[in-house]
Amino acid sequence: MTARRPSLAVVGATGAIGGVMLRILSQHADVWGEVRLVASPRSAGRKLVVRGEESEVLALSEDVFDGIDVALFLVPDEVSARWAPIATSKGAVVIDDSAAFRLDDDVPLVVPEINPHAARLRPRGIVASPNCTTLSLIVAVGALHAEFGLRELIVSSYQAVSSAGRDGVTALREQLSLVAGTELGTHPGDVRRALGDGAPTSTGPFSPFAAPVALNVVPWAGTDAGDGWSSEELAIREECRKVLGLPELRTSATCVYVPVVAAHSMSVHARFENEVAVDRAHEILATAPGVVLFDSPASGDFPTPSDVVGTDPTWVGRVRRSMDDSRALEMFICGDNLRKGAALNVAQIAESVAAEITSV
Amino acid sequence: MTARRPSLAVVGATGAIGGVMLRILSQHADVWGEVRLVASPRSAGRKLVVRGEESEVLALSEDVFDGIDVALFLVPDEVSARWAPIATSKGAVVIDDSAAFRLDDDVPLVVPEINPHAARLRPRGIVASPNCTTLSLIVAVGALHAEFGLRELIVSSYQAVSSAGRDGVTALREQLSLVAGTELGTHPGDVRRALGDGAPTSTGPFSPFAAPVALNVVPWAGTDAGDGWSSEELAIREECRKVLGLPELRTSATCVYVPVVAAHSMSVHARFENEVAVDRAHEILATAPGVVLFDSPASGDFPTPSDVVGTDPTWVGRVRRSMDDSRALEMFICGDNLRKGAALNVAQIAESVAAEITSV
Repeated sequence: MTARRPSLAVVGATGAIGGVMLRILSQHADVWGEVRLVASPRSAGRKLVVRGEESEVLALSEDVFDGIDVALFLVPDEVSARWAPIATSKGAVVIDDSAAFRLDDDVPLVVPEINPHAARLRPRGIVASPNCTTLSLIVAVGALHAEFGLRELIVSSYQAVSSAGRDGVTALREQLSLVAGTELGTHPGDVRRALGDGAPTSTGPFSPFAAPVALNVVPWAGTDAGDGWSSEELAIREECRKVLGLPELRTSATCVYVPVVAAHSMSVHARFENEVAVDRAHEILATAPGVVLFDSPASGDFPTPSDVVGTDPTWVGRVRRSMDDSRALEMFICGDNLRKGAALNVAQIAESVAAEITSV
Repeated sequence: MTARRPSLAVVGATGAIGGVMLRILSQHADVWGEVRLVASPRSAGRKLVVRGEESEVLALSEDVFDGIDVALFLVPDEVSARWAPIATSKGAVVIDDSAAFRLDDDVPLVVPEINPHAARLRPRGIVASPNCTTLSLIVAVGALHAEFGLRELIVSSYQAVSSAGRDGVTALREQLSLVAGTELGTHPGDVRRALGDGAPTSTGPFSPFAAPVALNVVPWAGTDAGDGWSSEELAIREECRKVLGLPELRTSATCVYVPVVAAHSMSVHARFENEVAVDRAHEILATAPGVVLFDSPASGDFPTPSDVVGTDPTWVGRVRRSMDDSRALEMFICGDNLRKGAALNVAQIAESVAAEITSV
């Protein structure tokens, strides 16, 4: 007897993360029975290919969740906040990629390499997936934590513009074409003159960034979270604490956009309870699930976004022990913000739920 | 009676830093008597404008230092190592921008805002100026140290390609034109396919970087310094210790090139002996010489390279107290790597030596 394959709804199928999700579903084609593609009424009726077949996009409504076992939400916070409870009321398990439920006590926040069992206890029928910045580092850091006992994280991000959505990529593209005619920012104000101040209110092209992002870096991601912090910086702190089960983990993050299309990088200072050795850290990272160790810098082997984009794992390099602290490691970590940073982690959680359903 | 104005030689006048130096000399036109421009024999005979007048570039030789009071060396390490002792033997005081002497015990390493008096004690007649990465952060950090007592620095750089010289800027320019036709790095290998591996040995255009730098970030600057560290990372550590007079300062740096033409940025975690308050840190930074405080992120006021390029000061924003450590501050700091990061600091040191000479 073959177990019934569970049915899946993909809400937000037409977005940037939705597009990556369809590719992942095509690669993992045998997991799901029916796959229903859902988006806003504006995108309804479009045809998308998944698992080699064309499928029409349905408008988001209560009815689309009828008979659905698992619903993936790849949509803005407010859409998840409104529609996820409707999906669960219809009996679906929701895997949500938005920030709407991540820090709720009765919603597990899951990274399958680290806390897979947390997905089984979901009193509201919702499982949340972390922010792309958290996901870009936590698989590697979690593997080291299991051995050395993590006490403190100080991280600086080099974030890709695609984590600000399609608008982020468009803004970089348009800004690069505008500055191409200048002397590439060698003189004061070149970039500013070409782009205005780059903010949404400027006369330049629309941009989701608070400053020009072409030939520039922008140390502000998300919204104002008080005391000088951005929402993305506090998300890393709170989500790392929750996923790792370390409510007192000391964490300071600085989030910075860089002119890279896809793949986040993080410079990480990690302090542990116990002494660390680079050789042992290398062994752990080389064998940890979901991690690629790429660390021979004198030979040019260190991860960069261009190596990592389109791949599933978290890549780690530049591992060294702090010269003044035998309990701390420095690392440079890269991960594709649209794959493990978003769609892949959601798909992994969904597959673990599917395995539960089919094993009942 | 008017004091004799001292004579100056600018060695490396035709380089990128030399060009910035000539602009600074034109702005501070009344400090120096004769200004002699010197470069490699290859560049000799060129005419450059300084202080509004054309001046012919002389080939580097022993004779060019005859009658020179102060000689600025804006040249590679090996050129400084060979020629600075020749200049001092002719009676000139050398202000050297290279790494050749920075860590020698009998050569002071000077940042005029921090340790101006160190320039007066120069047993070999040489005063060294720090690396551009050290200079991009030390003025701000030094001001906070004077009040709070610095104990640890954890820094991640966002370095401009011009710190790798004219080749760095050319490489970014050529790589940007090559990737312009691609889909901007959204698919795996786009950037790598367009650029080869970006290393000097590849078939792509020459690049001083170990990976593509357009639409990418490169976590490696300088040469292999052992145990996984790059030379630039250790330079920040040793130079901060020497300039601040803190031989035991705990320091971990990660140096990363970003596709920015000019102005270095640094994400800084600074831990102090005493408790810190953001209000007091703001007061210190707002009044510190050589520092601009630009810190109202919710209104879009934080420093980025495009704000800072071409300006003299170190710009500081994103100041906040670590949520888990009342003795630590996070900051984002930007400075023009060719001005304060190189030519301006050398000019400031030279002017302090000129003041000595004229006051004798």
